[in-house]
Amino acid sequence: MSDKRVKKVVLAYSGGLDTSIILKWLQTTYGCEVVTFTADLGQGEELEPARQKALLLGIKPENIFIEDLREEFVRDYVFPMFRANAQYEGLYLLGTSIARPLIAKKQIEIAEKVGADAVAHGATGKGNDQVRFELGYYALKPDVTVIAPWREWDLTSRTKLLEFAEQNQIPIAKDKRGEAPFSVDANLLHASSEGKVLEDPAQEVPDYVYSRTIDPEAAPDTPTYITIDFEKGDPVAVDGVKMSPATLLAKLNELGRANGIGRLDLVENRFVGMKSRGMYETPGGTILYVAHRGIESITLDRGAAHLKDELMPKYAELVYNGFWFSPEREMLQALVDKSQEFVTGQVRLKLYKGGVHLVGRDSPYSLYDQELVTFEEGAVAYDHRDAAGFIKLNALRLRTLAQRKKKLGL
Amino acid sequence: MSDKRVKKVVLAYSGGLDTSIILKWLQTTYGCEVVTFTADLGQGEELEPARQKALLLGIKPENIFIEDLREEFVRDYVFPMFRANAQYEGLYLLGTSIARPLIAKKQIEIAEKVGADAVAHGATGKGNDQVRFELGYYALKPDVTVIAPWREWDLTSRTKLLEFAEQNQIPIAKDKRGEAPFSVDANLLHASSEGKVLEDPAQEVPDYVYSRTIDPEAAPDTPTYITIDFEKGDPVAVDGVKMSPATLLAKLNELGRANGIGRLDLVENRFVGMKSRGMYETPGGTILYVAHRGIESITLDRGAAHLKDELMPKYAELVYNGFWFSPEREMLQALVDKSQEFVTGQVRLKLYKGGVHLVGRDSPYSLYDQELVTFEEGAVAYDHRDAAGFIKLNALRLRTLAQRKKKLGL
Amino acid sequence: MSDKRVKKVVLAYSGGLDTSIILKWLQTTYGCEVVTFTADLGQGEELEPARQKALLLGIKPENIFIEDLREEFVRDYVFPMFRANAQYEGLYLLGTSIARPLIAKKQIEIAEKVGADAVAHGATGKGNDQVRFELGYYALKPDVTVIAPWREWDLTSRTKLLEFAEQNQIPIAKDKRGEAPFSVDANLLHASSEGKVLEDPAQEVPDYVYSRTIDPEAAPDTPTYITIDFEKGDPVAVDGVKMSPATLLAKLNELGRANGIGRLDLVENRFVGMKSRGMYETPGGTILYVAHRGIESITLDRGAAHLKDELMPKYAELVYNGFWFSPEREMLQALVDKSQEFVTGQVRLKLYKGGVHLVGRDSPYSLYDQELVTFEEGAVAYDHRDAAGFIKLNALRLRTLAQRKKKLGL
Amino acid sequence: MSDKRVKKVVLAYSGGLDTSIILKWLQTTYGCEVVTFTADLGQGEELEPARQKALLLGIKPENIFIEDLREEFVRDYVFPMFRANAQYEGLYLLGTSIARPLIAKKQIEIAEKVGADAVAHGATGKGNDQVRFELGYYALKPDVTVIAPWREWDLTSRTKLLEFAEQNQIPIAKDKRGEAPFSVDANLLHASSEGKVLEDPAQEVPDYVYSRTIDPEAAPDTPTYITIDFEKGDPVAVDGVKMSPATLLAKLNELGRANGIGRLDLVENRFVGMKSRGMYETPGGTILYVAHRGIESITLDRGAAHLKDELMPKYAELVYNGFWFSPEREMLQALVDKSQEFVTGQVRLKLYKGGVHLVGRDSPYSLYDQELVTFEEGAVAYDHRDAAGFIKLNALRLRTLAQRKKKLGL
Repeated sequence: MSDKRVKKVVLAYSGGLDTSIILKWLQTTYGCEVVTFTADLGQGEELEPARQKALLLGIKPENIFIEDLREEFVRDYVFPMFRANAQYEGLYLLGTSIARPLIAKKQIEIAEKVGADAVAHGATGKGNDQVRFELGYYALKPDVTVIAPWREWDLTSRTKLLEFAEQNQIPIAKDKRGEAPFSVDANLLHASSEGKVLEDPAQEVPDYVYSRTIDPEAAPDTPTYITIDFEKGDPVAVDGVKMSPATLLAKLNELGRANGIGRLDLVENRFVGMKSRGMYETPGGTILYVAHRGIESITLDRGAAHLKDELMPKYAELVYNGFWFSPEREMLQALVDKSQEFVTGQVRLKLYKGGVHLVGRDSPYSLYDQELVTFEEGAVAYDHRDAAGFIKLNALRLRTLAQRKKKLGL
Repeated sequence: MSDKRVKKVVLAYSGGLDTSIILKWLQTTYGCEVVTFTADLGQGEELEPARQKALLLGIKPENIFIEDLREEFVRDYVFPMFRANAQYEGLYLLGTSIARPLIAKKQIEIAEKVGADAVAHGATGKGNDQVRFELGYYALKPDVTVIAPWREWDLTSRTKLLEFAEQNQIPIAKDKRGEAPFSVDANLLHASSEGKVLEDPAQEVPDYVYSRTIDPEAAPDTPTYITIDFEKGDPVAVDGVKMSPATLLAKLNELGRANGIGRLDLVENRFVGMKSRGMYETPGGTILYVAHRGIESITLDRGAAHLKDELMPKYAELVYNGFWFSPEREMLQALVDKSQEFVTGQVRLKLYKGGVHLVGRDSPYSLYDQELVTFEEGAVAYDHRDAAGFIKLNALRLRTLAQRKKKLGL
Repeated sequence: MSDKRVKKVVLAYSGGLDTSIILKWLQTTYGCEVVTFTADLGQGEELEPARQKALLLGIKPENIFIEDLREEFVRDYVFPMFRANAQYEGLYLLGTSIARPLIAKKQIEIAEKVGADAVAHGATGKGNDQVRFELGYYALKPDVTVIAPWREWDLTSRTKLLEFAEQNQIPIAKDKRGEAPFSVDANLLHASSEGKVLEDPAQEVPDYVYSRTIDPEAAPDTPTYITIDFEKGDPVAVDGVKMSPATLLAKLNELGRANGIGRLDLVENRFVGMKSRGMYETPGGTILYVAHRGIESITLDRGAAHLKDELMPKYAELVYNGFWFSPEREMLQALVDKSQEFVTGQVRLKLYKGGVHLVGRDSPYSLYDQELVTFEEGAVAYDHRDAAGFIKLNALRLRTLAQRKKKLGL
Repeated sequence: MSDKRVKKVVLAYSGGLDTSIILKWLQTTYGCEVVTFTADLGQGEELEPARQKALLLGIKPENIFIEDLREEFVRDYVFPMFRANAQYEGLYLLGTSIARPLIAKKQIEIAEKVGADAVAHGATGKGNDQVRFELGYYALKPDVTVIAPWREWDLTSRTKLLEFAEQNQIPIAKDKRGEAPFSVDANLLHASSEGKVLEDPAQEVPDYVYSRTIDPEAAPDTPTYITIDFEKGDPVAVDGVKMSPATLLAKLNELGRANGIGRLDLVENRFVGMKSRGMYETPGGTILYVAHRGIESITLDRGAAHLKDELMPKYAELVYNGFWFSPEREMLQALVDKSQEFVTGQVRLKLYKGGVHLVGRDSPYSLYDQELVTFEEGAVAYDHRDAAGFIKLNALRLRTLAQRKKKLGL
């Protein structure tokens, strides 16, 4: 247990069994007032039951905070990250990572409002989420006390947890009695699963683990074509219909789900030092990633595009490791955002049985110049003879190296 | 025309109409002896007709060089590049780029053997290939004279080319009379198409452009499962059958073709400064890319993996731009190869309607430790309380920043 | 000679012999109207003689543009670059490189104003400056015609140049009759010398080449102490006296000169592909570099500082190669500028016989926290035990690697 | 105190008061057998007194290990690092950081030999050295128990330490009774000082803190010229005299000391998260750094040099943070070493009053080609007209961007 005395704590509360146990444990262990914060980030659950449960567990009505964060989440977190084409370890679209800073920020805002001196979360002691939550807390309120029950308590088995719940009159849903075969995190960007049945990386993910996408084999036998419109790097319309950020992502999720898009079976490297195997479903995000690269391909200059590509792994690593509220992430974001001024236009995509295929892109700001690339010589400002000089000077240092080798008889 | 007098030139000769015209043009324009070099890189064409055609065009038998380079190509060029997970602009597997240095190297070797003072190629003045060929030539023989007919001659239209062919008794196949609707480059790694019908990036690639893969919609309705074995970063067996590099890649091409895998419609940035739109088919390479990342995911340490990811864009750019024979590419290769010592094991893949899905990986050198990640506390060397310290010290600088903000009332 | 017809050309005109010859050559070769642009960038020469000379050579008064750019140069070019701590190849403070884009920009502005269709400069065909000028021209006016006389004319020896001057009534100063023992470029940031007596990199630079600094051996035997105040990354005062950018840099130059500071003897790699040996004097800039790093050391967070350090070589290369007006330089600048918000405070420096030594730094925004680093345990938020966890988790992947080795008996 | 039972521990033992206290504390607290390891890394102290003291404190003769590591230290740690031109935060030559991995390695070797299950060091809980030692231990012996007394005991003040010493019959030198005004670490590469009188970064370092260099003002009034010969990136001779690695570095230290070279007053960012202020003296290393860059400047190709420069900050950070025995440091080393094959030749340096000035460099492998850079057109393979094409194609994308702006009326 943390050494510090705590008077009031803001808990990230889902309304589920685990965070209800934490709620009770905080009350009994720290003897402090508990404030609950429940957010809708598009995880697909009702919020009102969380309020009822909090009341039942003795939380004062004024200490229950419930907020729909879907638009803020997509607009201020998901979209900025997609401007960077961020993929952790070449594949993972960071669906869990990107939600944590927003929750942390809201908890701290509530803490400031209600005069709480502590915050608590339900992440375990082996994962990345504890890091992401806590780096967020500390970056926004340096003197806050952080309580991470999973690292502190002695409820180290399922049996002990259920005993504690029973002793404390916490309702236990029937299907929570047994061990869950895997654990899930979900929001509007993705659902992730890990643990238990997924722990052997040699074994294929069982079909029942997927929840956000249908099996590609069950997807329609004919492709679905869609268009996405972008403005300054962000998507603004699907099939010509303007939508708010969250609505748009939900729409892409729906399209992705129906076509079996966005499944990822990954062994990744956690910030805390071990490898873990996870299964991710990011239907809308997978479509968005392909679409954004597509619109960039005609509107971004090579210098800008390559600089972004070189810095992307670092950006993704920062998000993954929980450094959203760090100067270096903000500096990289400034660099990325600077590049997006003309990333405006439309892409056309073909969705088919798990695949997203870019089939067309168009923009009033296109840098693609048909005249420059035609084989027939045109009126354009490209002189074939320039290429000779270009190559000659690029080769100069290589020739000097070769002359050295020759001189040395190598 | 190049100022230098030329006595003997080694021409990269395919046996097709264009390089036959070049052959004749070199003879008539430079009055020099022409040596032809025709290589089998797996482009899927017979080489003997090239010999016949060269003889017909007056090349002396001892000046005709024909070589099967498939194994060398895959072993010494394709595989080292795949160890780096190289993708240009996030998507392109560099199928054309990687073949050019080998052809350049062979031309120079022949030039040294026959005492030629010049080399020539059939790449146009607007593309990347002229750069790749010539940087290769210069890096290996700094005093060589390079002849790039497409940059020099006045045969600037199809009509003029055909006229020249007729005047010089060069046989013209019937189907070469008209304009080709697109141009193709092919080798064992890929086929690429560009030009004409592909020039509007808003329009979908017509189906008849594809040659290496069947349409995903026409692919089998049930998935194909395969395994690939790796040793030190290179694939060595498919479905348990050991194969030579070229045989293995051909096998993966076959599997990819049948499942519609590896189609890419891309607008890319050429080294010479303009954007171009190309269509690539890399069936086996696409499978190999996913497989290699998969085996790395359990055998490579995070530090090694992230360093590779950060440097990959630079490596890919070097290959794309033609700097294969440069110190910096060789330095990066040394770094990459250093990391592959234990990249040994087996991956299992599911191929389905255009998609390659990693479904399992296993290795005697796996760094994935099931005990480290289980939720239940085990006997392993992971203490939850360590995480608290880890987070605290990672947060220290962020807290200091936050304290500054606070002090300043920001 | 450029193929294009030219009606009016804006020439970067120094008033010296070489650009006067160019002026005349443009008139006679292109038969076009010549507009001269002469700028004061702090090179230390009067501008009025350039006006008189232009008039003498037949330039219409309304076609003579003379501008004092010193403040703009330092404020908008030098200072932004120093925010990035830019050093090319680890040592060169880019004094020549940074002046070229501004001159190019002004020439283009004048071209737009007077309706000129061409610009011309006096840089040679082997150096970097031609690239820097011309990339600037093209980036700002894509359809401009560029004339680079040194690449076009046949005045390929000193003798021919002097003959041309005499034939065209161009006055020749007595000391210009012979060959200059080296060539010089100068502005408020630096003076550089190269060529002739400097061409053997094994030989020490002769003392008479230096013009901006006294010999360290001749410098005062006692150190000079100064302070520099910074605001948001830019210097604003020396020894407590507020100064405009150009005045401040001039003041630092004076201090640097007197103490023999800022001499650099360098073999560098030119963008055009060869190595060259140059001698640079950057007295004020050398002081500023040390000072800026000093104030950053207490006001910048580690994450920000390290990101800047990693990207600095790329930034410096872009400036050196002439890509000031490129999206990627602007993106990096956005990143750098984002970091400078709190780079405010004062540093104290000791100047002595060629050396600049940082001896103190102070800031209201300091992140240096004396309590955090004292050996005695204080009230501060640092718990020694956190370090154990921090190390343990950082070590986890290394231990896993070591276990693999052990298991394999390696 | 560490939870684990410990039977035998290998202590990094200097023979000084602090590690003697640790020795005793380990015996009394853990009740375990203590093995001492004392190394000569060139810190400038006799080793025999350490043996006597260990015996006095009850260590069995066979448990006392004393080793002269100077040659191994310089050859296998210092020189490889200097091949990379490593400077942490742009300035610090990593003198302390680079010694820690070697000590850790030797402790582990001894532990394996004597069958010890634990290792211990005398680094405090706030510094970087604890991290460097322990990452080394864990990387080489994953199951070792690490004891870090400064993080564990309650001897949290000078008074308590002295009391403990007296109670345990540990001899206390007279000058150790009071508080040291600063703490020192030293080896053949450098001496560093921090703490107490240095803690206010606004105050100049007092002269009495320096131990390895004389005050530049007291240095000779005439410069000292020396030459250094390199072979494959490593120095092998000074003034023409071949020397072993340690002898050579000692020689450079002597030259540096006499000329007041290598003092550095720095505020740096520790890995554990806070800023600290240190004073470093690296006389020989400072000379070596300048010399190595000098020989590289004529023997390394631009591509190789720039790649090294871009990766240097990462390399330096790894060494600083203690990741010497990590795959990523080894990968970077492979890259660096690959580049050094021809870094052979001689440089000439001028040492004067704190400054190291490169005044000449020469090499049989020089890539500097005088003919390529002369202003007069020579017979060499550089055609001025190539520059036009080179610039044109480099400008192409910038012109396309400018055309877009124009079209948009921006």
